[in-house]
Amino acid sequence: MAFRTVAICGVGLIGGSFGLALRKAGFSGEILGVSSPGTIAEAVRMQAIDRGTTLEEALKLADLIYLSQPIPAILDCLPLLDAAKPTALITDAGSTKAVIVDRARRPARKAQFLGGHPMAGKEVRGVAAAEAGLFAGRSYFLTPEQAPEIETESASELRYWLDAFQCNVHCAAPDQHDRIVAYTSHLAQLASTALAGAIANKLGVETAIPGAGPGLIDMSRLAMSSYDLWSEILVTNSKQIDIALGDFIEVLTQIRASMPNNLENQFKTASSFAKSLRNG
Amino acid sequence: MAFRTVAICGVGLIGGSFGLALRKAGFSGEILGVSSPGTIAEAVRMQAIDRGTTLEEALKLADLIYLSQPIPAILDCLPLLDAAKPTALITDAGSTKAVIVDRARRPARKAQFLGGHPMAGKEVRGVAAAEAGLFAGRSYFLTPEQAPEIETESASELRYWLDAFQCNVHCAAPDQHDRIVAYTSHLAQLASTALAGAIANKLGVETAIPGAGPGLIDMSRLAMSSYDLWSEILVTNSKQIDIALGDFIEVLTQIRASMPNNLENQFKTASSFAKSLRNG
Repeated sequence: MAFRTVAICGVGLIGGSFGLALRKAGFSGEILGVSSPGTIAEAVRMQAIDRGTTLEEALKLADLIYLSQPIPAILDCLPLLDAAKPTALITDAGSTKAVIVDRARRPARKAQFLGGHPMAGKEVRGVAAAEAGLFAGRSYFLTPEQAPEIETESASELRYWLDAFQCNVHCAAPDQHDRIVAYTSHLAQLASTALAGAIANKLGVETAIPGAGPGLIDMSRLAMSSYDLWSEILVTNSKQIDIALGDFIEVLTQIRASMPNNLENQFKTASSFAKSLRNG
Repeated sequence: MAFRTVAICGVGLIGGSFGLALRKAGFSGEILGVSSPGTIAEAVRMQAIDRGTTLEEALKLADLIYLSQPIPAILDCLPLLDAAKPTALITDAGSTKAVIVDRARRPARKAQFLGGHPMAGKEVRGVAAAEAGLFAGRSYFLTPEQAPEIETESASELRYWLDAFQCNVHCAAPDQHDRIVAYTSHLAQLASTALAGAIANKLGVETAIPGAGPGLIDMSRLAMSSYDLWSEILVTNSKQIDIALGDFIEVLTQIRASMPNNLENQFKTASSFAKSLRNG
């Protein structure tokens, strides 16, 4: 084990949970946090990090640098990471990968960068909601541009810890990751937003409430997501999301044209897929 | 209280739960069931009904006739109800109302018909899944064509029992009911089916599984619904569903055109609506 010092940049829900998960899994080195003073105080109190420091000092000390800020802050941070130790591993937790991995390609930097994306979250943000078990049972994407990147010594150690967190680690190229989540995450979000919006506009809340059963409650949960979080995802994965939205509109248009009969195959395909997700 | 004998036609999840809820709420008269022999045996064992009988005998005895079969069976049954006692109240639990209420308008029948729709259900069907608390906390639509229909003595007694079940009773004309559920229930179902279908077709199950977080799990639950149940809903509410699907496609098309920026208002409207559903 070569990670003696870990630096978490952006100690929110994900970063704080990463620190707590490391400790729970037996990591005995120092965990540094780079975040606002209030967040640092709360994260230290929760034992998600040992102490706060500046990015400059963190880069001097850290063997693993974990970027868990919002995507714009990750992008701003990348050029500064040229100062990381040559043996360090830098990874991030951004929800889209192609733009970040592209900008992370910097000849001036010796340290390896390996993109990542934990498929974990909560409706509440901030370090106060962090927990050691946040990643357990969830997918965790690592996004090498070339397969050998995940075989380096430090990448193997990162995978060791992710395994210890009981994540399901999946490797995919950045573009492939972004294509997958465009459908499974971003399209699902926009479908919920559009459904809630269409009902709000056409029925209004007062009329809709009596008709809202458990199905609509499920289908409208994602609609409560914050635009602040989503705007950066939409901007950095717009091409893939456009394709996914087009496919979804096409399927809906086919369903509309087939109505009211001839939908047996659509129901069967959808049902079989939904059941596989639960058994997969 | 004038209901001394209740007949439940179609003793499945809804009909069986109606019988159990009546008993739990203190109904002391006889509860008859008209259903297949196997279902009758199970329903008697569960004490959802007292005994099985023929429709003919049920119509001679019943003060309240509760139609909880699939919609096609309800429609087939309606002409036979001309033989109901003149003082009886007939109500149904079909998921769409305009077609049923229209066909229930029969000059030859003396007994009052008042359409109904409990917004309750489960993923499992059949009387074995019935429970006395199925309707508690759920909306229950009554769909008079004219307001005075819900003020009759027998309609008031039905409302007494629904209140005792802790339903939220809402009155709406049949067309208005069908318009509401076209958005809140039928569109939500088709959105889930279309989303699961689009992802299944474009990514395939194996590729999608690593990207499936809790959001997609929520959004794909309805996709597991049975086509057998839904085909009759789609057929009997096709016009309203067509309008709702058109509105949904329009909102998605607007979102696609606004991508990746300019979606703040859509997120705000949707979020506010989704939160109101939960507080309403």
